[in-house]
Amino acid sequence: MSESMQDWLKSDDSKNYFELLRMPTVGADPTHIRDCVQAATWLKKWLKSIGADAELVLPEGGADGALPVPVVCGELKGAEGTTSVLVYGHYDVQPPDPLDLWDTPPFEPTVKDGRIYCRGAQDDKGQLFAFLCGVRELVARGVTIPTVKFVLDGQEESGSCTLFKLLEDRAFRKRIAADVMLVSDTGAAAELRPAIVAGLRGVNHFTVKLTAANRDLHSGEYGGIAPNAAQGMAELMASLHAPDGSIAVKGFCDGIVPPTEEELAAAEAGFADAAAYKADIGTEPCGGAAGKSIVQRNCFEPTIEVNGIHTGYGGPGSKTVIPCEAIAKLSTRLVPGQNPARTFEAVKEHLREHCPKGMEVSFPEDCGLSAAMRLPLASPLFRLAESVLAEMDPRGAVFMWDGASIPVVSALREATCAAPLLVGWGQPEDRIHSPNESFSLRQFAAAKDWAQRILSAI
Amino acid sequence: MSESMQDWLKSDDSKNYFELLRMPTVGADPTHIRDCVQAATWLKKWLKSIGADAELVLPEGGADGALPVPVVCGELKGAEGTTSVLVYGHYDVQPPDPLDLWDTPPFEPTVKDGRIYCRGAQDDKGQLFAFLCGVRELVARGVTIPTVKFVLDGQEESGSCTLFKLLEDRAFRKRIAADVMLVSDTGAAAELRPAIVAGLRGVNHFTVKLTAANRDLHSGEYGGIAPNAAQGMAELMASLHAPDGSIAVKGFCDGIVPPTEEELAAAEAGFADAAAYKADIGTEPCGGAAGKSIVQRNCFEPTIEVNGIHTGYGGPGSKTVIPCEAIAKLSTRLVPGQNPARTFEAVKEHLREHCPKGMEVSFPEDCGLSAAMRLPLASPLFRLAESVLAEMDPRGAVFMWDGASIPVVSALREATCAAPLLVGWGQPEDRIHSPNESFSLRQFAAAKDWAQRILSAI
Repeated sequence: MSESMQDWLKSDDSKNYFELLRMPTVGADPTHIRDCVQAATWLKKWLKSIGADAELVLPEGGADGALPVPVVCGELKGAEGTTSVLVYGHYDVQPPDPLDLWDTPPFEPTVKDGRIYCRGAQDDKGQLFAFLCGVRELVARGVTIPTVKFVLDGQEESGSCTLFKLLEDRAFRKRIAADVMLVSDTGAAAELRPAIVAGLRGVNHFTVKLTAANRDLHSGEYGGIAPNAAQGMAELMASLHAPDGSIAVKGFCDGIVPPTEEELAAAEAGFADAAAYKADIGTEPCGGAAGKSIVQRNCFEPTIEVNGIHTGYGGPGSKTVIPCEAIAKLSTRLVPGQNPARTFEAVKEHLREHCPKGMEVSFPEDCGLSAAMRLPLASPLFRLAESVLAEMDPRGAVFMWDGASIPVVSALREATCAAPLLVGWGQPEDRIHSPNESFSLRQFAAAKDWAQRILSAI
Repeated sequence: MSESMQDWLKSDDSKNYFELLRMPTVGADPTHIRDCVQAATWLKKWLKSIGADAELVLPEGGADGALPVPVVCGELKGAEGTTSVLVYGHYDVQPPDPLDLWDTPPFEPTVKDGRIYCRGAQDDKGQLFAFLCGVRELVARGVTIPTVKFVLDGQEESGSCTLFKLLEDRAFRKRIAADVMLVSDTGAAAELRPAIVAGLRGVNHFTVKLTAANRDLHSGEYGGIAPNAAQGMAELMASLHAPDGSIAVKGFCDGIVPPTEEELAAAEAGFADAAAYKADIGTEPCGGAAGKSIVQRNCFEPTIEVNGIHTGYGGPGSKTVIPCEAIAKLSTRLVPGQNPARTFEAVKEHLREHCPKGMEVSFPEDCGLSAAMRLPLASPLFRLAESVLAEMDPRGAVFMWDGASIPVVSALREATCAAPLLVGWGQPEDRIHSPNESFSLRQFAAAKDWAQRILSAI
């Protein structure tokens, strides 16, 4: 744990990690498919180098509408009769844009002040590879470990379409079946205090398209006559929330199961306060519905977020057009009790109902749905994890209900019946999904240490 | 007038016109400044070739914040003691994007079915150059004509900043002083029936910027906590109009002078009906406030149009970010009685008041203001124009109140005391400001004919 940056930079771990980071594995972007396949092949070889079986897997006939980004599946045979463990992580990353806000090249790992800056440095190449390095260390040390199966996803950031397709196949499900599922793709609490994730929100992301006239029109000649798709999209997006910030989509919040008092209290204990958020994001942490606490809004309430709007002119000076088309990217985060398919229908129905005169709304692209997950606090696996984490850190672990989603984790849980254990080492300053993403050596070391300790303990 | 396309394509007029069209004179775009200067130099030489004095003019010290796109000023000395005429037109064009919607290269004139396709084919290189060809023809024929002064603007599409600056200079104003101002930058009525423009709307265009957090944030980790600039911009833009389509900005409509009954009746006579608009634009002509006729909405009511919104992700698949910044391009069209500066203040005040929590609104760029213009129908110049147009076309002329703006025309009128006469030959199928802009040989010939007839008659 006290390894110095200079020593670490000479190690195979860091060299391999940097090699993996240099591959721009934007799994959602067709122009990066070769990079994804290259990274998958690289991971397969790496797994083999530590004695595991490994191969690239794609569904027969492909996944509907998805790019053929392979899943890396591997297995490291352990002691007979022991508990089997499934390790899930992802090697794809978010797109790096806006590129101009990066201080260093987004796919060139750059070391500064104990941190490695690169897209994917943390999410999830960093967390995943640090965990894998822990496994490598155990093997090298000859420690007896359970059978470890690896499922390394190349499309987590865009809905894990290929893996979802694979899970439809009984043989594949059998192949990856395990007792416990370990996931290193979440955050620790403040100041790197260990955290066990007891809940994840579900997610649904899709594209909304609004069309008006048959072409962009002159805003003078047609102003007052033609419907305006930019204005229409603004009205549509604004209609999703009530003035108090609550969700205004009928039926969207149906069935929500609120947290228990125990869960709410535990969540509050592990959470940063409003001042910390303000310092972090640079503005008031005022998203979500008025009248609910930050913890409620982030952990136990759903959201509908506009991830982007693009319509009409955006260059220098002006172009006085009435745009004929507008695109919005939306994502919703879901909590237990919400039926993902029904929430999607509710949003579509809302947008159709609110579609302005003279325009048509459509949904040209959707990237998959996943339900929220909430795990019971009083489970033997959580007890074991708590005791291992207390050995690592005298402060002990807290429970967290993560506002983010790992859609495939619920699906893997159902498909394999494995009990999920999500312990990760992310921190807000890592800036995942943002420019200048980074991961510290301290975090890398913690993730590697955790891998060794939990696999030895299970 | 009955010249065939084949004959015309062999003429110097068409060769010169095509040469002018090939220069991508996007006056608002810094990357095209060399093209603008090249076109201005080309026009100067052309004017000299027909016997006029001509030079490129820029204000000393430049115009604030504007690119140094020169104004081409020229003078063709006419008979002593005759009326002097100022010819105003512009050689800059709108940006060509969206490029993928063009069927032919936007800056390569392409002839198809009697039409020339090119950005600027009509607006205003086509209308202007056809008029200039009429002047050339008069000179070649040795006809006695009045002194003709030329002011050819390179920034009409972005606010004529340089020309506005020049108009502050008394010597410049004196230099371009004239009795009558001829402008060929407007439309004819349906089926190319001649039209005299008796009114223009004013315009104001500017950029709105909304900032929220200090970076784009993960929509799971921060969803429910962070304010969302995409959603905020949608709310801001939606707030500009009431549900019935009327303008919701307090003070914006103050002072509006409604049309007289005679003006309204004349405007209705020269206007296309709703069915024609639907056929043209491909959707219901339902822009503007409910309860007012199309003519009222287009000619005598102001508008606030969103010309573009850009924020967050817009690529393939999804990127689940909470955008930290959003840009919108707005333009407003103004009618007589509205004070342009006060309308701008009203919009800014409205947006500041409606700025969502945790965000900041700013106005990083504005491209100039101009008031609306409405000319009295019973003027001697209009009588003369009506009789000349009746000679050209047995249907005679109609009066039109153009929904568009030529900001500099009001300013030139004030600066020179010249009586404006706006007769142009645009048609909706020209698709100005849109992809696949075009101009027909028939329109080109009409504009050229008009130039010869009106200059002979004045």
